[in-house]
Amino acid sequence: MRNSPPALLFFSGNSNMNLALKVSKYLGVPIAGMTFERFQDGEIHLKSEVSVRGQEIYIMQSTNPPSDNLFELLIMIDALKRASAEKITVIIPYFGYARQDRKTQGREPITARLIANLIETAGANRVISIDLHAGQIQGFFDIPSDNLTAVLLFAQAFKQIPAEDLVIVSPDVGGVNRAKNLSNLLPGSHLAICSKSRMSKDKVDDIKLIGEVKDKIAIIIDDIISTASTLQLASHEIKNQGSKEIYACATHGMLVGSAIDKLNHSAIDKVLVTDSIQIDPLKLAACPKIKIVTVAPLIGEVINRIHNNASVSEVFEEADVNGVSLFVFDNEVNN
Amino acid sequence: MRNSPPALLFFSGNSNMNLALKVSKYLGVPIAGMTFERFQDGEIHLKSEVSVRGQEIYIMQSTNPPSDNLFELLIMIDALKRASAEKITVIIPYFGYARQDRKTQGREPITARLIANLIETAGANRVISIDLHAGQIQGFFDIPSDNLTAVLLFAQAFKQIPAEDLVIVSPDVGGVNRAKNLSNLLPGSHLAICSKSRMSKDKVDDIKLIGEVKDKIAIIIDDIISTASTLQLASHEIKNQGSKEIYACATHGMLVGSAIDKLNHSAIDKVLVTDSIQIDPLKLAACPKIKIVTVAPLIGEVINRIHNNASVSEVFEEADVNGVSLFVFDNEVNN
Amino acid sequence: MRNSPPALLFFSGNSNMNLALKVSKYLGVPIAGMTFERFQDGEIHLKSEVSVRGQEIYIMQSTNPPSDNLFELLIMIDALKRASAEKITVIIPYFGYARQDRKTQGREPITARLIANLIETAGANRVISIDLHAGQIQGFFDIPSDNLTAVLLFAQAFKQIPAEDLVIVSPDVGGVNRAKNLSNLLPGSHLAICSKSRMSKDKVDDIKLIGEVKDKIAIIIDDIISTASTLQLASHEIKNQGSKEIYACATHGMLVGSAIDKLNHSAIDKVLVTDSIQIDPLKLAACPKIKIVTVAPLIGEVINRIHNNASVSEVFEEADVNGVSLFVFDNEVNN
Amino acid sequence: MRNSPPALLFFSGNSNMNLALKVSKYLGVPIAGMTFERFQDGEIHLKSEVSVRGQEIYIMQSTNPPSDNLFELLIMIDALKRASAEKITVIIPYFGYARQDRKTQGREPITARLIANLIETAGANRVISIDLHAGQIQGFFDIPSDNLTAVLLFAQAFKQIPAEDLVIVSPDVGGVNRAKNLSNLLPGSHLAICSKSRMSKDKVDDIKLIGEVKDKIAIIIDDIISTASTLQLASHEIKNQGSKEIYACATHGMLVGSAIDKLNHSAIDKVLVTDSIQIDPLKLAACPKIKIVTVAPLIGEVINRIHNNASVSEVFEEADVNGVSLFVFDNEVNN
Amino acid sequence: MRNSPPALLFFSGNSNMNLALKVSKYLGVPIAGMTFERFQDGEIHLKSEVSVRGQEIYIMQSTNPPSDNLFELLIMIDALKRASAEKITVIIPYFGYARQDRKTQGREPITARLIANLIETAGANRVISIDLHAGQIQGFFDIPSDNLTAVLLFAQAFKQIPAEDLVIVSPDVGGVNRAKNLSNLLPGSHLAICSKSRMSKDKVDDIKLIGEVKDKIAIIIDDIISTASTLQLASHEIKNQGSKEIYACATHGMLVGSAIDKLNHSAIDKVLVTDSIQIDPLKLAACPKIKIVTVAPLIGEVINRIHNNASVSEVFEEADVNGVSLFVFDNEVNN
Amino acid sequence: MRNSPPALLFFSGNSNMNLALKVSKYLGVPIAGMTFERFQDGEIHLKSEVSVRGQEIYIMQSTNPPSDNLFELLIMIDALKRASAEKITVIIPYFGYARQDRKTQGREPITARLIANLIETAGANRVISIDLHAGQIQGFFDIPSDNLTAVLLFAQAFKQIPAEDLVIVSPDVGGVNRAKNLSNLLPGSHLAICSKSRMSKDKVDDIKLIGEVKDKIAIIIDDIISTASTLQLASHEIKNQGSKEIYACATHGMLVGSAIDKLNHSAIDKVLVTDSIQIDPLKLAACPKIKIVTVAPLIGEVINRIHNNASVSEVFEEADVNGVSLFVFDNEVNN
Repeated sequence: MRNSPPALLFFSGNSNMNLALKVSKYLGVPIAGMTFERFQDGEIHLKSEVSVRGQEIYIMQSTNPPSDNLFELLIMIDALKRASAEKITVIIPYFGYARQDRKTQGREPITARLIANLIETAGANRVISIDLHAGQIQGFFDIPSDNLTAVLLFAQAFKQIPAEDLVIVSPDVGGVNRAKNLSNLLPGSHLAICSKSRMSKDKVDDIKLIGEVKDKIAIIIDDIISTASTLQLASHEIKNQGSKEIYACATHGMLVGSAIDKLNHSAIDKVLVTDSIQIDPLKLAACPKIKIVTVAPLIGEVINRIHNNASVSEVFEEADVNGVSLFVFDNEVNN
Repeated sequence: MRNSPPALLFFSGNSNMNLALKVSKYLGVPIAGMTFERFQDGEIHLKSEVSVRGQEIYIMQSTNPPSDNLFELLIMIDALKRASAEKITVIIPYFGYARQDRKTQGREPITARLIANLIETAGANRVISIDLHAGQIQGFFDIPSDNLTAVLLFAQAFKQIPAEDLVIVSPDVGGVNRAKNLSNLLPGSHLAICSKSRMSKDKVDDIKLIGEVKDKIAIIIDDIISTASTLQLASHEIKNQGSKEIYACATHGMLVGSAIDKLNHSAIDKVLVTDSIQIDPLKLAACPKIKIVTVAPLIGEVINRIHNNASVSEVFEEADVNGVSLFVFDNEVNN
Repeated sequence: MRNSPPALLFFSGNSNMNLALKVSKYLGVPIAGMTFERFQDGEIHLKSEVSVRGQEIYIMQSTNPPSDNLFELLIMIDALKRASAEKITVIIPYFGYARQDRKTQGREPITARLIANLIETAGANRVISIDLHAGQIQGFFDIPSDNLTAVLLFAQAFKQIPAEDLVIVSPDVGGVNRAKNLSNLLPGSHLAICSKSRMSKDKVDDIKLIGEVKDKIAIIIDDIISTASTLQLASHEIKNQGSKEIYACATHGMLVGSAIDKLNHSAIDKVLVTDSIQIDPLKLAACPKIKIVTVAPLIGEVINRIHNNASVSEVFEEADVNGVSLFVFDNEVNN
Repeated sequence: MRNSPPALLFFSGNSNMNLALKVSKYLGVPIAGMTFERFQDGEIHLKSEVSVRGQEIYIMQSTNPPSDNLFELLIMIDALKRASAEKITVIIPYFGYARQDRKTQGREPITARLIANLIETAGANRVISIDLHAGQIQGFFDIPSDNLTAVLLFAQAFKQIPAEDLVIVSPDVGGVNRAKNLSNLLPGSHLAICSKSRMSKDKVDDIKLIGEVKDKIAIIIDDIISTASTLQLASHEIKNQGSKEIYACATHGMLVGSAIDKLNHSAIDKVLVTDSIQIDPLKLAACPKIKIVTVAPLIGEVINRIHNNASVSEVFEEADVNGVSLFVFDNEVNN
Repeated sequence: MRNSPPALLFFSGNSNMNLALKVSKYLGVPIAGMTFERFQDGEIHLKSEVSVRGQEIYIMQSTNPPSDNLFELLIMIDALKRASAEKITVIIPYFGYARQDRKTQGREPITARLIANLIETAGANRVISIDLHAGQIQGFFDIPSDNLTAVLLFAQAFKQIPAEDLVIVSPDVGGVNRAKNLSNLLPGSHLAICSKSRMSKDKVDDIKLIGEVKDKIAIIIDDIISTASTLQLASHEIKNQGSKEIYACATHGMLVGSAIDKLNHSAIDKVLVTDSIQIDPLKLAACPKIKIVTVAPLIGEVINRIHNNASVSEVFEEADVNGVSLFVFDNEVNN
Repeated sequence: MRNSPPALLFFSGNSNMNLALKVSKYLGVPIAGMTFERFQDGEIHLKSEVSVRGQEIYIMQSTNPPSDNLFELLIMIDALKRASAEKITVIIPYFGYARQDRKTQGREPITARLIANLIETAGANRVISIDLHAGQIQGFFDIPSDNLTAVLLFAQAFKQIPAEDLVIVSPDVGGVNRAKNLSNLLPGSHLAICSKSRMSKDKVDDIKLIGEVKDKIAIIIDDIISTASTLQLASHEIKNQGSKEIYACATHGMLVGSAIDKLNHSAIDKVLVTDSIQIDPLKLAACPKIKIVTVAPLIGEVINRIHNNASVSEVFEEADVNGVSLFVFDNEVNN
């Protein structure tokens, strides 16, 4: 028994069951059984239904608020570590609090580092994330960490458009690297940046566009769409400057507050987000501009490679070649 | 400046601001300034408004669900540690998840230990709690930990009743030690225990009373009143066995679900709980049986002693003497 | 060589060689060779005679006083860790100092946690114990820990007696849970509790029995029989209350001081203990009431399952079925 | 003796003795005595000449290559920790390897995190740095870390120029945040970004300027001037686009390879760098465009505040007011 | 209270109460109150009678076998750490297991390092030892460690003899450094070394003397006198080679087995040992050759200096000057 | 793929590529691909060219100054750990700073321990060294560490000389153990020790020879030949005392300063060193007395055994038997 190839055990927290089901389907293994209970006082209780002794296991959970998502992940790790799992790989499609990654003022926490410490303390042995707000967050971990990217999936979506017609726009100065990365995948495309400035107490934010968008197809790229305020503002300025068509893409579709409303009232024609965060179907129904790209095959393929001790780096090289079959639009979710 | 006596900095999370205000009043220092924000996506952001460099500070927060309470505590510790606080003492009036303190079945987490590890990882240097579900949880910490008790406050409330008329009842077999402790503080009082047994699938739980309660005044003691189901059941059995008056007391008044309703419909005449958890005033209004004893002077006194490097153990010895002034009923909350 | 199934290497310290030989026999492997020397100044020196490089090994040692037992265990772990053992599982049939598991007064140590830390520091990767004084001690470890129980073995010994004739008695208020567990395994049996109270300086301890034992067969259950004082006292009280037959059972037969004498002069008819602690044959000869149940098959089966990455939890479920062959009385030791 | 105010002990490694002397002068205390030796085989040996027992000490060392600088720092920390220093604050004016702060490809190290770990392992209790390549590197430390900035000093140097005439230029997409920060300190100034693209194997890098510089005074801002290749390229493009005057400023003047030559042949009129790295006087003599701003008062003031448990954050607020006296050009070094 | 000078709290374990009393007398403070109990099953229980909250405390205990000495030390540290002592300095006059400081064969432990880890794990902040078997053991600690030496005391005892008449003899090749150190303190003295060789199975060890002892006064120096076998053998060979008088000195007088007998039958005229280990008065009475030098003033002085944050290194320099008053023979113990 | 035998991946740093090539040849595997770059500012950058996910890998690097050698090793470990290597074994043929292994004066570092900590912090799982300056340095590691020895190779080189004609000489008192070890391998050989004494400020060091060398063949043995000053001095004294032939051997041929010159002008006839440190061929050409013995087969064999989970201790026992084929002179390097 000991020397037979270990089964792949894939567990999932409750933050994004839709994605977990898709990953499970890609892997060809069911989601490993875990009992979740919530006591009347709100305490989470869970228990693995399967033995994990000596196994290399995979737990997927996004850690967007509320903290119950993060805490559920920590408890799962604790339970499986104490049940003698040999190695625990944690996949965090959306790593919450990633924007609190440094002290911008004195006496602030560095919450993203705190969370990395909590995950290591609980007993994780390896972490996989997707499009962290800053790549440096990988360095918040002492355990091996890989940061996957969905930018390839976006590049693929736009590659039929002649690159010289495209201008990749960063909606703020902090995201220029991301825009540059997409631009590099669409060689010949142009670059532009939005720069916000706070006017005064009475006046709202002002946005300035640096670079040329006239008669071009603009692709605004961000890591997260949260309230969509910046996107809306940026899209109008881009339109005003003469862009003929505007797309937006972002890995993480948080879509809080009046985001749906703002997207509907923006100058954006189509919005691409991935399913790293589970999106309320009502929101999708209310905003036909949104199209969802799934990261399930990306996650599934990476789990497969880790489980077979194969290279993860090569996923991205091979993706270029086999992309058509690997990174397809997820028509089940949204069409 | 360096050699002047360090000011006492008392911070509080948001789980129990009422208690924090009372502790602050006892200490004679305002709650130290901390900005709390919640971003639209639900992320907590905070920042200390005062410099803590080189200071010994105190943070109070109960960690009952939801996990945001615990997480807020962890972030506060991180922020203050990174702001170079010299020593961080955490006061946790109600330590959530304390009942998940061991594996009762395979593949369960030991969540109470996990939480102890998280608090140490965040950077706490010392922990104060009140009536932990099991005293052994102190040993989950490597840092100094003190577990205070509210049992003295309860003993005081009943000391005018002749002890030989009293029978202290544990509502389940796991709480007999607690009942015995109260009984020891009321020398001459008797002891009884309720033992629950699950009958069959069709029949509800049955409760058996071991020990004599006939013509006695029963005091049921527990650490937490959660749904009050057991209390209700126990009170009826005690009544049936001929007890002439029934009190209940518990340190932590969680009071979830239909607890208020059950207390109202129980055979209990009066219920004592402390303010370790902040109780909704509507619940109190709906159940006049409940009387609240405050732990604020207890916490305040312990903070004072720690800050002056005095003995904490002596609080309880002195309490016996000075009890009248130190541990009074909190008439502001409930009368 | 690397891919052949790893041999099971089972090492034993010197605290309980009798049990080690039985476990070795159950496993079908000899005790792995280790040279033990004691220098003239009392220092322990040891050395493994076999290569453990890359192996998963098992070390068994009870840690009852004197401290040399614990220290011998720590040195063994250090030697085998430095010899590049891949994983070290420690089996501690009797975990000494388990009653010092919390601070009952200020300025006490929490020795059980200290010992857990020492074992982790030395390099253990997993710990197996039997009937810890408190289940929470599992949470003193960050490494996986399993707490086995001998209560099933005791239940088996009494299952031919009609349950309604049985009353399970806890000799003190701290052990009611244990009594309740045995009672649950003998459905229909009753429960009673002894409560000691210290009278005054001049008078000895007084014991009160809570619950009914008249005309019943009483089974007193404890985790440890140390001086047997409480057992003796309790048995007389039970007798006085009209019990027709009295048994005692306890996992750990420490039997110090005048324990044998006290058992002989008690009202107990038969005493069951396991061989978790090696008992002096002279003591057994002097007290024919004592019958020994071996935990060797329990330990052996658990080692086998760990070594084959199988579930340990299932031991107890299967024990119910296969119990007859697995958990038999150890006739070699005591008949 | 114990309660007298502790003397401020300021130690310095050998990487930047010029700056250490200036900080020492600002603090009004001599550099604490430490013997440095280099054995014939190249091993560094050192020893503190003063007792540090129970003292809070400060060690300054930049960690630019060769690794001897970093290693000298680690040995100093080890020696002073073992000599029972109470608290060790490390000031790293230039934090080497900061650009290796994440994995940009698979199987790379995260060297900046490794270095943070090494410094914590050696025994540092607090770290002060200046203009880290990425603010997230603060989060690589678990100990308190403060990242000071020299951008205020640069802003001061340009504040007599009407802001609307100024355009702040980031020489690459990764530095836009820095440019934005300087722009915010000069309200009304404009922003532009250089974007490099690798053409083909035969052709050299091409640089594109995004944003308007025509008839404006351009200030290129970077964190490090290393080979000055990018600066030279950028300056010509800015000139070509019609800028009327070009300044460059960077906190860290690494100036390796043919940097001096490139600055001399660039379109830049004046270059501001700080003395965080000790610059060869011959290089300064060969390039009269370079002007040095000292960070000594900034470091000195921060040490003073830490030593007196005062707020460090306020340095920057007060700097605004008292800036004239605090952050002056260092005429001794370069005029 | 907080700012008054902290009292010096000096605790002692039970391994060497005689020495503790002398150190206490030197310090002018009583030994701090600690209750020691031994339960009937052999478990050690202890509790501090005084509050140590926020205090810097000192614990003295030699760790010679049995392991109870070491374990008692570890429990004391745990108790005082959990009682919120600010800093715990451990003084170990005799550090047991120091000869197991490296692997001389495969699969051995490095017990001295294990013990260092255990002491750090328990919570010690600083360690003081005397004449460790190898100076490198200091490096087994990550916490500050100072290794004091009694060699000065021995040098003082022989300084009235003309140095050119003295030959310092190492009884084995491993102790030559120690002999050289004593020789350096008695400038002009000579050096000789004994080299043992195992002959064959039938023949006992043979000892060869390298160096000249004829007509000289030989001083054999070792760190420990354990069984005195080597000393006896060496003394006869030295006598045979023509030495006119033979002294022996060793810091640690373990004196096990037939050591007293062997010393009495050796060619040694006088033996000096310190009181780092408590020696049975019967042994001293049986061997009038033994003279005891106390290390109490040395330990006392070092504690005083640590407590006042003064230099420990200077003890040894000043000892040279003030030696007469500081390091006197202890006439109370042995004359 | 997962269950096929893992390939042996052998990486090497740049400190001693000659030795790495020989080890690679012995192992029959190429040196694993790693890209090394040095940026213009001196920063080292590297990246593994092969996937190491789940593999057990071996990294060889000597850590002689400059610190870049040590730092390169640390970065390699970090990169491979983050690339999910399963286990990292580090082979350090020459462990630099080993002589700084204890505090000989106050306020010194223990640099050898610091380095051990740095290597563990970076992520090494096991360390192999050769002839550490002191065996205790093994104990500076918590991870398994093996210290190999080249003394067998030297013994083999001299075994054709009749042992009674040989005298093994330690050049200083600190190295007597090493001389004794070699003497034990050449049974019947004699022992002598050089003892240096500093005369006065005006006079140079004086060396005294303890033991007989007249008409004998002297073999001086040391661990390192650094400046060769002591060796030269010792050889003249040995010659003066009538030795008829003088050899020197040392594991590590550091050979700095005028070492070559001093060896040429010494009374030594032949010098044996190993290739643990890469020696400049010009030096070898300038000193025909030097003969190099390779440690490549020793290292290769040990790697093989570790990789196959076989015993390392047995290398030395088997070496005795198979020595002729395993430990031959390396004629390619020096003949």
